[in-house]
Amino acid sequence: MNGAESLVRTLVGGGVDVCFTNPGTSEMHFVAALDRVEGMRCVLGLFEGVVTGAADGYARMADKPAATLLHLGPGLANGGANLHNARRAFTPMVNIVGDHAVYHHQYDAPLTSDIEGIARPFSAWVKTSPTAETIAADGAEAIRVARTAPGQIATLILPADTAWNEGTGPAKVDEPPPREQVTREAIREAAEMLRKDPKGTLILITGQALRVAGTNAAGAIAAKTGCQVLAQTSNGRTERGAGRFSVDRVPYPVDQAIARLKDFRQVILVGAKGPVGFFAYPGKPSVMTAPGANIFRLATIDQDLIHTLEWLADEVGAKGAAVPFEPAVRPGLSKGALTVDACANAIGALMPENCIVADEAVTSGRGLFPFTKGAPPHDWLQITGGAIGLGLPLALGAAVACPDRKVLCLEGDGSGMYTVQALWTMAREGLNVVNVIFSNRSYAILRGELHNVGAHNPGRKAIDMLSLDRPDLNWVDMARGMGVAGSRATTAEEFNEQLARAIATPGPYLIEAVI
Amino acid sequence: MNGAESLVRTLVGGGVDVCFTNPGTSEMHFVAALDRVEGMRCVLGLFEGVVTGAADGYARMADKPAATLLHLGPGLANGGANLHNARRAFTPMVNIVGDHAVYHHQYDAPLTSDIEGIARPFSAWVKTSPTAETIAADGAEAIRVARTAPGQIATLILPADTAWNEGTGPAKVDEPPPREQVTREAIREAAEMLRKDPKGTLILITGQALRVAGTNAAGAIAAKTGCQVLAQTSNGRTERGAGRFSVDRVPYPVDQAIARLKDFRQVILVGAKGPVGFFAYPGKPSVMTAPGANIFRLATIDQDLIHTLEWLADEVGAKGAAVPFEPAVRPGLSKGALTVDACANAIGALMPENCIVADEAVTSGRGLFPFTKGAPPHDWLQITGGAIGLGLPLALGAAVACPDRKVLCLEGDGSGMYTVQALWTMAREGLNVVNVIFSNRSYAILRGELHNVGAHNPGRKAIDMLSLDRPDLNWVDMARGMGVAGSRATTAEEFNEQLARAIATPGPYLIEAVI
Repeated sequence: MNGAESLVRTLVGGGVDVCFTNPGTSEMHFVAALDRVEGMRCVLGLFEGVVTGAADGYARMADKPAATLLHLGPGLANGGANLHNARRAFTPMVNIVGDHAVYHHQYDAPLTSDIEGIARPFSAWVKTSPTAETIAADGAEAIRVARTAPGQIATLILPADTAWNEGTGPAKVDEPPPREQVTREAIREAAEMLRKDPKGTLILITGQALRVAGTNAAGAIAAKTGCQVLAQTSNGRTERGAGRFSVDRVPYPVDQAIARLKDFRQVILVGAKGPVGFFAYPGKPSVMTAPGANIFRLATIDQDLIHTLEWLADEVGAKGAAVPFEPAVRPGLSKGALTVDACANAIGALMPENCIVADEAVTSGRGLFPFTKGAPPHDWLQITGGAIGLGLPLALGAAVACPDRKVLCLEGDGSGMYTVQALWTMAREGLNVVNVIFSNRSYAILRGELHNVGAHNPGRKAIDMLSLDRPDLNWVDMARGMGVAGSRATTAEEFNEQLARAIATPGPYLIEAVI
Repeated sequence: MNGAESLVRTLVGGGVDVCFTNPGTSEMHFVAALDRVEGMRCVLGLFEGVVTGAADGYARMADKPAATLLHLGPGLANGGANLHNARRAFTPMVNIVGDHAVYHHQYDAPLTSDIEGIARPFSAWVKTSPTAETIAADGAEAIRVARTAPGQIATLILPADTAWNEGTGPAKVDEPPPREQVTREAIREAAEMLRKDPKGTLILITGQALRVAGTNAAGAIAAKTGCQVLAQTSNGRTERGAGRFSVDRVPYPVDQAIARLKDFRQVILVGAKGPVGFFAYPGKPSVMTAPGANIFRLATIDQDLIHTLEWLADEVGAKGAAVPFEPAVRPGLSKGALTVDACANAIGALMPENCIVADEAVTSGRGLFPFTKGAPPHDWLQITGGAIGLGLPLALGAAVACPDRKVLCLEGDGSGMYTVQALWTMAREGLNVVNVIFSNRSYAILRGELHNVGAHNPGRKAIDMLSLDRPDLNWVDMARGMGVAGSRATTAEEFNEQLARAIATPGPYLIEAVI
């Protein structure tokens, strides 16, 4: 059994049974091994940003890592932006990056590059496996690292001769260490803060704490003490909807964030970081909390956040408190002009139970949260690293992980173009993804940001750099070109009808919402 | 004048007057400055690989660097694959990468990353400019480095506060050092090699040596001595066609390369590196020249290659030798089935004078060279680093550099998908690019490579990873979606007619050649 097959068997044995791929020559032995090993599903992407973004979406929903297969340094670089997002979502991922044969490196052939250097900024662990005897053990270690809390990116570089030489067979994957618990002292300190000044206290959560068990406990604490609970601005996965405790997010715009946080004298961080501006702006602070606020880091992202919240609930006597769960209330459908709110009404009204929302609607997306809080239980996935071009791949990966659930991808037109190739993979795999493209024909966020950074009265060239008209993108044509059926909605009635029909129909679909 | 404007004025003053952009919030002051400075043309790309690939194509034709404007680490990473190609083409380029304000870095906001770490594998020079007082001088240094032979990539990181604080005004750009000359001893040694064994000697050239002055001198040496002249497998820019000395290339497939080179007992390198396999294959050598061949490095890529060849021509008495220039002979048009050769005949028959060919046709492209050698004088641009996804952006950039010339982009369907967004920019800018997509609906090169690496009889999963059918890509739909008109050709007659019409019509066009 060669090194490549030893690695594939190690992956499957270690529970990594989906591989998103964009292979090249140096990965051919890995590709050939796929047919000799049962149990590895391979999903081809036509661009590496699709591959890494899909692996992110998959792992967020499957709660275990996917593998990616990438072609040398440039292939890894192409996947880099979505690796950045995955790193910021604490997504477990195992990247397999092919390389030249070890002995070929000295010749500096055209595709030679510093792969470890490219991998390092995006990876918690990077290793080049030097021989076919080491690759299985290195693969096992990559899986262990990826699965180590809070979820990490492991990048394993596979030289071609490491793949084709005789290997050892599969290696066993060690269990990662369990999540660490917080100390009794930390729980007591948080409880004391809540006792002293409950109304002035915010519990800021993210990660694991946004699963139902976490929000249940957070809701009980809030109900018992009168404190407030918020989530970070961006979170990898939030379980929410009717019958769950709704957690609002810190707003993205700096002025709104500061206004939302100004009355909190104490902030208890559970997985979250102290809220800071997504960007800096001249004359505005970087830190969003009130000056002098007491920020207490109760639990870091890698610790057991659910147990932390349950323990704190016990400590403040909140066990059995009547949590104000979200009532099942949906908005009504709009009529007339197609606005962002009209889209939001339709999404809130029509979203099916157990839906997965992949949200990269950027400016159009900020308003969607309130319209959907009373919709049937669903998962909401956000872009966590700010590197746009994640939405379509994220939806793709989530659909691979959860074939029985409907995925709703809410995507900006500017963002969607970065990884538009994801549509083809949705078609090939017959994935249940309804893609809604908010077509405002501009980098709308940047028009606001130009003003926010103090650059007023932009001229023609500046406006040109933020506009996606001239020519207008036709998303229905592009989708058809990649095998995905679609339609354009220009009124609320059209959008309502198209969304209802798309949700009811299996397979991928695209709606271009001209807003 | 703020730092951003100081930088833009430095760029324009230093001859960098085209900027390919994909900006975000941290670059808004740079964008705003564009309207206050005369003479900077800005070209928006909807994905960063388009931006860096276009800057490569521009510089190859303009013989001076363009700037790029990229959004933090992920934006730079998205441009990384085409930076790799540009590095391998020795293309001068100045990347401006926005970053958070310096004081905001400590908060590790979501888009924070190790930008210098991401830049280093692709750049000869990387610097973060810490203040608005340093940015103009740093920009001037970046231009000087980029323009230093053989052409280098300089990456300048621009923190937001460096852009918005008060700067110094523009800085003057120092002239880069002139190209070094080879030594008289080296010329004498090469001349002696040619005297002793002319028939057994190969002169292997690339870079500057493939401009007309270089091939003229190389042709004279060959005519006088009876040696042979070849170019590297991949070269950034080759001036060729009727009335010029034709230089064939070392073949890509290892067996063909070894067969082509086996009789040379001596190789004189002029800019080129000793020929090695693009990839390693089990049981095949990495070095393509005959064992024991004497490899003499006469000139490195950064030296004055044209003067080297002219000097060597003098030394061997080749001045005034009758160079066998290529006669003006075009192939006839084909009829019937649309094959790669039928496409090649049409391209050779119809290519207009002064055409620029951007060639990323991969498997389909290898055969095109002989069909076009007698066509009117033209430039041929290749992908030099093997990171596919360069062709469309390369054509775009060349068309920006040379608005009065027709650009012919020869693109594989697999390769084209990586940076398909380039079509939109071609439409927006009204560029004279005829895009021919060789639609074989597979990563055809990999089917051969699977065999070459010894993985015979691939199974269903392996073949799936190399196939682009299911669903077929419809390039005409995709192009229309981005504002580029197109048509599909399934017979030679259709292709001939469509190509002739597209060449005669201004603006961008796309032909999907189903082969």
